[in-house]
Amino acid sequence: MPKGGDDVRRRLQFAALKLFRKHGYEETTAAQIAAKAGVTERTFFRYFPDKREVLFDGDVAFTEALASAVRQAPSSLSLWNTLFHAFQAVKQIFVENRGFTLPRQRVIASHPALQERAVAKARVVTATLAAALIERGVPPSQANLAAQIGMATLSHAVATWFADDSVELGVHIAKAFHEVRDLAASGTDRANT
Amino acid sequence: MPKGGDDVRRRLQFAALKLFRKHGYEETTAAQIAAKAGVTERTFFRYFPDKREVLFDGDVAFTEALASAVRQAPSSLSLWNTLFHAFQAVKQIFVENRGFTLPRQRVIASHPALQERAVAKARVVTATLAAALIERGVPPSQANLAAQIGMATLSHAVATWFADDSVELGVHIAKAFHEVRDLAASGTDRANT
Repeated sequence: MPKGGDDVRRRLQFAALKLFRKHGYEETTAAQIAAKAGVTERTFFRYFPDKREVLFDGDVAFTEALASAVRQAPSSLSLWNTLFHAFQAVKQIFVENRGFTLPRQRVIASHPALQERAVAKARVVTATLAAALIERGVPPSQANLAAQIGMATLSHAVATWFADDSVELGVHIAKAFHEVRDLAASGTDRANT
Repeated sequence: MPKGGDDVRRRLQFAALKLFRKHGYEETTAAQIAAKAGVTERTFFRYFPDKREVLFDGDVAFTEALASAVRQAPSSLSLWNTLFHAFQAVKQIFVENRGFTLPRQRVIASHPALQERAVAKARVVTATLAAALIERGVPPSQANLAAQIGMATLSHAVATWFADDSVELGVHIAKAFHEVRDLAASGTDRANT
């Protein structure tokens, strides 16, 4: 990527969001996004295959960072603490993107096709997380379950943090982990057989 | 629905699955599905809005059964046991559809658009489950988290049951609930702060 590429990428993303929200997602073209960002349409397509992917661009970087954090977690950690450690290691990505994420979520929420795409992308994150756990020696079935429970817990933490950022995301993550523990501990063996 | 409607519906579903798998999803038309099931194309459209929905027909009934099971769960149950109780109450739906579900999953897995649709439908189930918990007095944030964790746990149980039905689904559900409890209990407060 050329020098300054991340800046162009970010400008395209914000231009797209503004146009999507002002004129509607369907009505906005890649050429309009490029013009608003002050670049050519050809430059737009150097960064994104289509206007839809402008909204999902950060997902690949997040997925890679999460898998890397799992790989680098101390091997002494329990499975649950490995997830906790990895989420704390990548939380900064959410913090840096907070300004982009909220308007992005509003655009996605208003288009079923975008929602479906977002959910499909979330599946890729979960599958990548599971694969990283398997690399650490976690049996596949347990890794898949842990990845799903972990991502549900992280999503919850991010949602509560969007609703209330008077405490930092890391605290919301810790709180969500405790909530899940308390939830799952509230079953009795008698009822569960 | 006319008498025998469920039989026609089921015949259309199996006819569609056979054609999807033999000729491909894209290449199969509603008219071909109707012909294979021995009904007119018009009859097809009395049951399904399009060929895609043939694959997702059971989801509405499942969602309603699950919400109803939550409403009918004894009020003395903890949140986790309410989920457990509700899943045990609806598990028969998975058992009855086992023959349909596996080929259906194969068709869905081979088409990204169908996968995205399946995931979107799963979100509706989770949201409906959360709403049913909220009706029982569970605070919304806790209900959403519990619904997500619960559905992830149920999905895991159904997947392990598809891989091994030497024990019944109810046992797989109980096992998955215990796995999640053990997973979430394996964190230490020191690591989680």
